[in-house]
Amino acid sequence: MSDTSLARRHRVVVIGSGFGGLFATKALKRTDVDVTLIDRTTHHLFQPLLYQVATGILSEGEIAPATRLVLEDQQNASVLIGGVEKIDVADRTVTSTHRGRTTVTEYDSLVVSAGARQSYFGNDHFAEHAPGMKTIDDALELRGRILGAFESAEVSTDPAERARLLTFVVVGAGPTGVEMAGEIAQLAHRTLAGAYRTIDPRDARIILLDAAPTVLPPFDDKLRRAAADTLEDLGVEIQLGAMVTDVDDDGLTVRDQDGAERRIEAACKIWSAGVAASPLGRQLAEQTGAGTDRAGRVLVEPDLTLPGHSNVFVVGDMMNRDGLPGVAQVAIQGGRYAAQLIAAEVRAHRKGRDKPERAPFRYTDKGSMAMISRFHAVAKVGRLQLTGLLAWLLWLLIHLVYIVGFKSRLATAMSWTWSFLGSSRGHLAVTEQQVVARTAINRLDAWEDSRAAPEAATASAR
Amino acid sequence: MSDTSLARRHRVVVIGSGFGGLFATKALKRTDVDVTLIDRTTHHLFQPLLYQVATGILSEGEIAPATRLVLEDQQNASVLIGGVEKIDVADRTVTSTHRGRTTVTEYDSLVVSAGARQSYFGNDHFAEHAPGMKTIDDALELRGRILGAFESAEVSTDPAERARLLTFVVVGAGPTGVEMAGEIAQLAHRTLAGAYRTIDPRDARIILLDAAPTVLPPFDDKLRRAAADTLEDLGVEIQLGAMVTDVDDDGLTVRDQDGAERRIEAACKIWSAGVAASPLGRQLAEQTGAGTDRAGRVLVEPDLTLPGHSNVFVVGDMMNRDGLPGVAQVAIQGGRYAAQLIAAEVRAHRKGRDKPERAPFRYTDKGSMAMISRFHAVAKVGRLQLTGLLAWLLWLLIHLVYIVGFKSRLATAMSWTWSFLGSSRGHLAVTEQQVVARTAINRLDAWEDSRAAPEAATASAR
Repeated sequence: MSDTSLARRHRVVVIGSGFGGLFATKALKRTDVDVTLIDRTTHHLFQPLLYQVATGILSEGEIAPATRLVLEDQQNASVLIGGVEKIDVADRTVTSTHRGRTTVTEYDSLVVSAGARQSYFGNDHFAEHAPGMKTIDDALELRGRILGAFESAEVSTDPAERARLLTFVVVGAGPTGVEMAGEIAQLAHRTLAGAYRTIDPRDARIILLDAAPTVLPPFDDKLRRAAADTLEDLGVEIQLGAMVTDVDDDGLTVRDQDGAERRIEAACKIWSAGVAASPLGRQLAEQTGAGTDRAGRVLVEPDLTLPGHSNVFVVGDMMNRDGLPGVAQVAIQGGRYAAQLIAAEVRAHRKGRDKPERAPFRYTDKGSMAMISRFHAVAKVGRLQLTGLLAWLLWLLIHLVYIVGFKSRLATAMSWTWSFLGSSRGHLAVTEQQVVARTAINRLDAWEDSRAAPEAATASAR
Repeated sequence: MSDTSLARRHRVVVIGSGFGGLFATKALKRTDVDVTLIDRTTHHLFQPLLYQVATGILSEGEIAPATRLVLEDQQNASVLIGGVEKIDVADRTVTSTHRGRTTVTEYDSLVVSAGARQSYFGNDHFAEHAPGMKTIDDALELRGRILGAFESAEVSTDPAERARLLTFVVVGAGPTGVEMAGEIAQLAHRTLAGAYRTIDPRDARIILLDAAPTVLPPFDDKLRRAAADTLEDLGVEIQLGAMVTDVDDDGLTVRDQDGAERRIEAACKIWSAGVAASPLGRQLAEQTGAGTDRAGRVLVEPDLTLPGHSNVFVVGDMMNRDGLPGVAQVAIQGGRYAAQLIAAEVRAHRKGRDKPERAPFRYTDKGSMAMISRFHAVAKVGRLQLTGLLAWLLWLLIHLVYIVGFKSRLATAMSWTWSFLGSSRGHLAVTEQQVVARTAINRLDAWEDSRAAPEAATASAR
């Protein structure tokens, strides 16, 4: 932390407080640099557990520690809250805004880890009817919709309407979709089983849809079959080779592999079918001539940098290098790798040496896992394939270790464990802000339609 | 649960899932009646701990168990989600709506426990600038405002603006205001102390204002002084005899006892100065000729019923009987009292006996307490007056026993204890729905102003 060697310390800007950005920042703790971590939100988000917030197992606070508190003891790091609007790789500046105030931050090295958002493959109007699961607000919105469907069914007297209200469709059978479908099934068939008087929540249909011919594509056949069997035991209907062609308030239209279209009436739809990289990816690509893939991810050099800009790293879900998957480990390892290169070059510069040679980024696959239900998971660790209770215990252990890793917060870990192991759901409280926002926005749309004067500003309030 | 004695079971409708309504419902568990509990929200709310949600100690789920799950095992009770719009004591019906669907519920006995809302004493425009603390959404809104003020201060370069952003004013020095001021002080001066780089959160001013000449009016002088001393040790400025005459986005105007007005610049204001009974109170009063007090509370008969309607009970914060305070114990005891009278009369009727005489409601003061800070509280139990650690332990014990009382959820109690005892704040996650809603509503207001066509509908979206 001393300022002996240089007049000005090397400035690192990190965009994004997700896995990539946070681990890049933490890895620079002992390096003589100033790190500024910029994010739109005030928290790090443990995204793989968002589905547990949506289904009432955890509270949003348990998976979203305040970034400032996580980095409190790292004196060379500061946190800037703001949405990044512009990166200028020629000027070496990042422009962000927070509540109308614009801040321009200069950098010597930049680590961009702005992640991905839900993608509807060009059908953005699906979003209103089938929210994705990328933010805390998404998860609370889904929690309100799932429980709201049961409440509306309880007071409905029309059998068709009641069936529609009790049909839940999860689009996308990757890990998030599988975990979400499993949890809704457990919520309906176990937690809420005796809670209603005119409906039986066990009548709820939970449908897991995917255009692909299999669940959990990243896993091998044995684990896929185990996952599908567990889901079916829970009462989840799995419909594969089924492509969603339309989504509206009352349900969705699906085209099966034989080309025939059919309709599923369902009040509550959840989208976990695809992601698109942060638009900052295209901004960087345009400035540097880097390519992007169909999901908008930047095709980076072997050292995760942009062509001709060896001081700009792109890591995590918004980069594409050899088709690595958009999982936490890729982001964490990418963030740490970028930090190590920056640290090595800062050290070399201070000692008056040449920049060291950069070894290309190599991803170490530590395995992958998905929790299907209480006491059931599937896990792949190297050549080892685990299912059932053993996989579930491994899942629990790894998540516990991760959570304790944040400032050794044993109290949080205990609280999380209790919430998670408790058989009833402690976090079913429904906020109403969604309703207020939706009411206001609907009225706003009506006003604007009635004036027939479309304005560019409409989109900004959504 | 058998239907042997009567063709039709006595129907009890309970309005409100707060302390009064929930305890009335639970007290009817072993009585041969059908109970319908109607509430706008899906949860019971442990309102005395809302301030801990606002300051990031607890998550909303920890103080808001789903009403259905609390009553899951009570076979004679059903829960109906809906806002009550009309009570008709002549027809003996309650009309409620949920997502546009109207339900009319008939009753033989009615227990109205719809509580109170924040009151601004006729200055409703204060609400936007100084939210109260009555609902989960209020608490999350305040959490966002409190943390947002620190974030804005961190990027502000104007000393006056920075001072305004770091000034927090709590209006109302009753138990809620005292607890809130204490928690903000601990958040600023301890939890966040090292989390910022350009500001020192310990510079934050926390002002506790009241027009009355003392803090904690329900307590005796000794406890008031102990509470004030502890608050001042925490760095809270107490300003008494100070009446708020205006509130705007940037601060508030205060008239001191000498009649002089002064201005306090403060970005974040919290209102805990007064309550007004649910408007259902006036509706009942108009129909039955009962009186109401200034806060809109119904002046009830000695048996908590309405004049001429011995089957309609009003309990909790929306009734006034001998000036009993609006605290949980008054609601709980009132709810249980009403349930006991209903149960006794149902039993007498089944046995063909006359209705038993009704003994008037008698409130047993079990004491009152307020937590000032970690390890400090004040408590009055009978003639016993406790301060400091002992009072705090008593406070903790009573709250734990209460929380465990709900379905014996030990896991929840453990989780709550860990969250509460943990020294860092586990629940600082900020949702963004407030911002979306506010943006939409502001734009809506602007539209409507520009059309100069005021509509009654405006209020409904707020």
